[in-house]
Amino acid sequence: MNISIIAGGAGFIGANLCERLLAEGRTVVVIDNLLRGSRDYLNRGLVASGATASQLIFIEADLAKRNSTEDAFAKANSFGIVDEVWHLAANSDIPAGVADADVDLKDTFLTTSEILRCMKTYKIGALYFASSSAIYGDLGDQPLHENIGPLLPISNYGAMKLASEALISAATESYLDCACLFRFPNVVGVPATHGVILDFIRKLNVDNNNLDVLGDGSQRKAYLHVSDLVEAMLLVRSHPEASKVFPINIGPVDEGVYVRWIAEQVVKRISPAAIIRFGLGNRGWVGDVPKFHYSTAKIQSLGWKPQLGSERAVLRAIDEIASQEGF
Amino acid sequence: MNISIIAGGAGFIGANLCERLLAEGRTVVVIDNLLRGSRDYLNRGLVASGATASQLIFIEADLAKRNSTEDAFAKANSFGIVDEVWHLAANSDIPAGVADADVDLKDTFLTTSEILRCMKTYKIGALYFASSSAIYGDLGDQPLHENIGPLLPISNYGAMKLASEALISAATESYLDCACLFRFPNVVGVPATHGVILDFIRKLNVDNNNLDVLGDGSQRKAYLHVSDLVEAMLLVRSHPEASKVFPINIGPVDEGVYVRWIAEQVVKRISPAAIIRFGLGNRGWVGDVPKFHYSTAKIQSLGWKPQLGSERAVLRAIDEIASQEGF
Repeated sequence: MNISIIAGGAGFIGANLCERLLAEGRTVVVIDNLLRGSRDYLNRGLVASGATASQLIFIEADLAKRNSTEDAFAKANSFGIVDEVWHLAANSDIPAGVADADVDLKDTFLTTSEILRCMKTYKIGALYFASSSAIYGDLGDQPLHENIGPLLPISNYGAMKLASEALISAATESYLDCACLFRFPNVVGVPATHGVILDFIRKLNVDNNNLDVLGDGSQRKAYLHVSDLVEAMLLVRSHPEASKVFPINIGPVDEGVYVRWIAEQVVKRISPAAIIRFGLGNRGWVGDVPKFHYSTAKIQSLGWKPQLGSERAVLRAIDEIASQEGF
Repeated sequence: MNISIIAGGAGFIGANLCERLLAEGRTVVVIDNLLRGSRDYLNRGLVASGATASQLIFIEADLAKRNSTEDAFAKANSFGIVDEVWHLAANSDIPAGVADADVDLKDTFLTTSEILRCMKTYKIGALYFASSSAIYGDLGDQPLHENIGPLLPISNYGAMKLASEALISAATESYLDCACLFRFPNVVGVPATHGVILDFIRKLNVDNNNLDVLGDGSQRKAYLHVSDLVEAMLLVRSHPEASKVFPINIGPVDEGVYVRWIAEQVVKRISPAAIIRFGLGNRGWVGDVPKFHYSTAKIQSLGWKPQLGSERAVLRAIDEIASQEGF
């Protein structure tokens, strides 16, 4: 019985991935600190996947801490042979990480360091890592492809994702068989735990007459629906080109949508009479990259294409998150 | 009275830098854990610089630990206004860091994280960081310029230098005024605490008939003399182009020398009758990059040129280290 570990598997993307791995017939051990994740998400995924209850094992643990990580991996390995780890455990609140560097140091980076240590101990060969477009920092109008530099992230979140990539890369030279470094774009869908759409909906839930937007709304970003993201990762994992250490951008093939447009769509869906009030500047917060051109040529060359572009991904996510929030 | 802090200032490069900053008339606070460094190195530099004893303050502290870093910075700030930090504190034993990831995690990366935290607290605006060519990993024959990617280091040392760069980069977006990321090549000179020349001389001191070399000697590397390195850093620090976050390679303008040639020169100087015995493969250890073409076009465009090429740097260092070791 081959086992997948999903670190951070009870969160937004982890829960979607878990459902797909269960549907593949794998046994999945989810390790999560339940800071933003939830066992409910997993149980819903278990039902949707059609898997048996024994295929899903949940371990609550803080993967930034050595002892609890060691305990969690020991337990996971007691169930059978673990042959892959999906590492999605991270802080997902970028501004919180800018305010206090310890947040990303621990949750985004030390999780990677401790997971690698246990993969070495238990000789687990394959690591699939949720990296981020944030590692690129603000390179202006240049298309962000995987071979660009210099990599100068502008948030502690981006910095600790790059630090994680670096440590994983060194591990593939030493004891890991292979590692995919999936550089995620902004991802939308449910179960939503954070992000601009959820923020807007919750603000309108408090005050359905006004929606305050950080920045002037001119930030443009590409969004991918979580269903497309999960399919992309599974495709890359099965691809023969993905050997040793393999950094790869995942993202929509369009240039993205403006925050202003997202605000308008959310208002239309939730509270059509509400007035949208914009702030100043084209950055929402320190560490926010106003716009970028994300190159997905590499993953397209592997035969991947998203089902939904940024617009349709956002529109579907607005519907899904509105339902989740009771609208 | 403006103060420079040199983290790791009692080590090989730090002691050379300290002497030059003292000669500039600055007050220098050296913080070092004395793992490889020595107060003797500093005292010799003080004498050579012609500075007064009160210009040099030494604090023994482990900068990977929060409390001791905070105490050291509090003390340093009690002497006057600290306006720059030179961060040279790091593990310098790459194979040790591959064997135990904690070594570079703590000494190469957490030092950066803790130093940044204190720079934020004390509003110190300028950081000069000793990064490394090891951040580039093994990109084959491509010329390694500052804008190349992907950055996939093959040692934990290189990974934790890249992690440090990333965190510093994020800090310049938030609270740091400017940061230079000096990507060091292999540096030679005295006081030597580690490195291939010292290794060879010490081996010959134990057995003057034989010199065992890791690998087949075909590794080719560029070497810079420490005197040229220090001048390069001071030039960049004074240059108006070096603003905000500024990654820059420092290295010789030649393509380097072969390990085989270094072994021969050391034997010639120390024990001409000794036989050199080579190992297999073109890598000395996991994490060792066999050869690379280091682009120094950027620093040359600022008007810098080393006084010594790789050959002359190594020959001078062999003489200096031989004297240091009593030959």
